[in-house]
Amino acid sequence: MARGKSPAMEKSAIRALVESWAKAVRARDIKGILAHHSADIVMFDVPPPLQSRGMEAYRRTWDGFYSWSDDPVVFAFSDMNITAGTDVAFVAALMRCAGTEKNGERITLDFRLTIGLRKIRGQWTITHEHHSIPAA
Amino acid sequence: MARGKSPAMEKSAIRALVESWAKAVRARDIKGILAHHSADIVMFDVPPPLQSRGMEAYRRTWDGFYSWSDDPVVFAFSDMNITAGTDVAFVAALMRCAGTEKNGERITLDFRLTIGLRKIRGQWTITHEHHSIPAA
Repeated sequence: MARGKSPAMEKSAIRALVESWAKAVRARDIKGILAHHSADIVMFDVPPPLQSRGMEAYRRTWDGFYSWSDDPVVFAFSDMNITAGTDVAFVAALMRCAGTEKNGERITLDFRLTIGLRKIRGQWTITHEHHSIPAA
Repeated sequence: MARGKSPAMEKSAIRALVESWAKAVRARDIKGILAHHSADIVMFDVPPPLQSRGMEAYRRTWDGFYSWSDDPVVFAFSDMNITAGTDVAFVAALMRCAGTEKNGERITLDFRLTIGLRKIRGQWTITHEHHSIPAA
């Protein structure tokens, strides 16, 4: 039965997908970053705007990130919690990145990440990301 | 077949749950706010801290909200997108609230909300919330 994977197997597949995405971010590999996203991705990012809809807008959020980020890129999970169903899943995680602010200050940023996924034609696909820091 | 509800029925059930939660927020009805949450809820809120884990910490985030919020409370959806599977679901939404900042300024705040749900003993249950505004 093709859809009969155990919850543990689904979680493991999602963990691998999300880790490969973060690895692509660290490698500045845009094709790898976009590899498992749906065309109608809805992104809530750390900096403005309020939301970015669709693949092209999502891709542009990474231009902003790389103009700020340290080199080599810091983008690592400090905690990851995966809730996997048979056809929908979400990930709630804490991550760390590092970069240089407009005033020249170098900072390390702990942020929150929620990812929403849907299984499309048997393949887990990211349809939503929400990155944020607490408001000042 | 008890688990055979259509995706449209699941979405409709989740929409009703989320709307009743927002209505409870507006009514300052703490029991109603907590009615569909799991004991191990993980909350990423607009103000610090980085995360709040568990029902008691989640409940306290509402004390902070009500110390800031307008009276009557503004807490309304401007956009809601529901992804419902058979046993896991998530909601990506835009909301509006209003309150008074520490400097006395009254503001309207557009914020992003992602909710993660899991079906537990046949009942959709919120296990994760992520509220945020873009970083300044």
